[in-house]
Amino acid sequence: MAGEGDVKLLGAAVSPFAVLARMALEMKGVRYEYVDEDMGNKSELLLRSNPVHKKVPVLIHHGRPVCESLAIVEFVDEVWDAAGPSILPTVPYQRATARFWAAYTDGKLFPAYFGIQRAATETERAEKVREMVEVISQLEAALANGKKPFFAGDRVGYLDIVVGCHLFWLEAFSGMFGVALVDASKTPLFAAWAERFGEDEVASKGVVPGADKVVEYFKKKRQDNPAAGTAAK
Amino acid sequence: MAGEGDVKLLGAAVSPFAVLARMALEMKGVRYEYVDEDMGNKSELLLRSNPVHKKVPVLIHHGRPVCESLAIVEFVDEVWDAAGPSILPTVPYQRATARFWAAYTDGKLFPAYFGIQRAATETERAEKVREMVEVISQLEAALANGKKPFFAGDRVGYLDIVVGCHLFWLEAFSGMFGVALVDASKTPLFAAWAERFGEDEVASKGVVPGADKVVEYFKKKRQDNPAAGTAAK
Repeated sequence: MAGEGDVKLLGAAVSPFAVLARMALEMKGVRYEYVDEDMGNKSELLLRSNPVHKKVPVLIHHGRPVCESLAIVEFVDEVWDAAGPSILPTVPYQRATARFWAAYTDGKLFPAYFGIQRAATETERAEKVREMVEVISQLEAALANGKKPFFAGDRVGYLDIVVGCHLFWLEAFSGMFGVALVDASKTPLFAAWAERFGEDEVASKGVVPGADKVVEYFKKKRQDNPAAGTAAK
Repeated sequence: MAGEGDVKLLGAAVSPFAVLARMALEMKGVRYEYVDEDMGNKSELLLRSNPVHKKVPVLIHHGRPVCESLAIVEFVDEVWDAAGPSILPTVPYQRATARFWAAYTDGKLFPAYFGIQRAATETERAEKVREMVEVISQLEAALANGKKPFFAGDRVGYLDIVVGCHLFWLEAFSGMFGVALVDASKTPLFAAWAERFGEDEVASKGVVPGADKVVEYFKKKRQDNPAAGTAAK
């Protein structure tokens, strides 16, 4: 197992971005201590390590913090480069394509689905669902272009984990809001990819929480602050 | 001069992100054809090359498009790695730090200053100016931490161009809206850095438009569509 050094990850149970950082560490077989932060009562270590955003995930390597999930994945891939297959593609053009789609996913996917639960009206919610469907259609097209089981080839790589870390939220939201966000009849390649990704022993199994954790999270949020309750079913 | 291959950059005169891509190409001494797009009447080549966003910049290398300015900079650094000093730092921890700040700048700086000119009310404008000041204060702190003339050392590198490509907009807006966005009395390190960056022969001189180009751009926009006029002075 790689990474006998001093590696700590500050995460939070339902944070897809913390799950992404864990997926990268798992893919490289890095031994690390996982610290689950209470985001309602952040630790001094988190506040000191990520003073700009005060958010998880933060990877602490030999006492020095790395913040931003995409930067963490690249860092893990570079520091433990010999510890396992490269997470990013190794050819510059394919790396650039993967980074393009990662930026797209990062900028669009989370805001769209997070917007579904924040929507104040049904019209707003329908708009956010439409945005989600658009993002997934674009990813469907990327899979169609690649013609491979995963985004950049025959095994799980960078874009797979960047998208895949959100799947448990999509599953939870499908139940909570009665909208099928991953729909084999509309985006069959994406649906088949999601199934394959969920079965991956290294990246997916073990670090992906069940969709029920997201449902619980919102239940607790509503109990703590009923006035701000989401309109989840 | 590096890059005898087939390299084309689709840009637009006042796009800071196109300027960023050009800075990377200049730093590596890559020979490229620059194509100035009319964003009101986009070329078939642009629409075909960036079907997802339909935006500049797009770098076309041997007929294959690379989109998203940060992905373009990394691509240029990787493809022409032997053509000049590395644009990104070469040490993983410093690369991660540079990527963190690049993501921060990309996510915060442009939306803040673009918001200044889109603001419908004085209150909204003041809020966007406040956001800008916050971003620049954070970058001031990053410079203070680094204790170097540029963000990652003694010469212009990744984060310098990621931030520096916006300076001509900040200069234009200072005049247009009467707010000093780069203010030596409040953020002396950032102001001194901006001056040093502007004097850099390779990254800055030659590819950075004058602030007057931004002023002209908004004048033309108002003439073409007076109803949507900005509140610029």
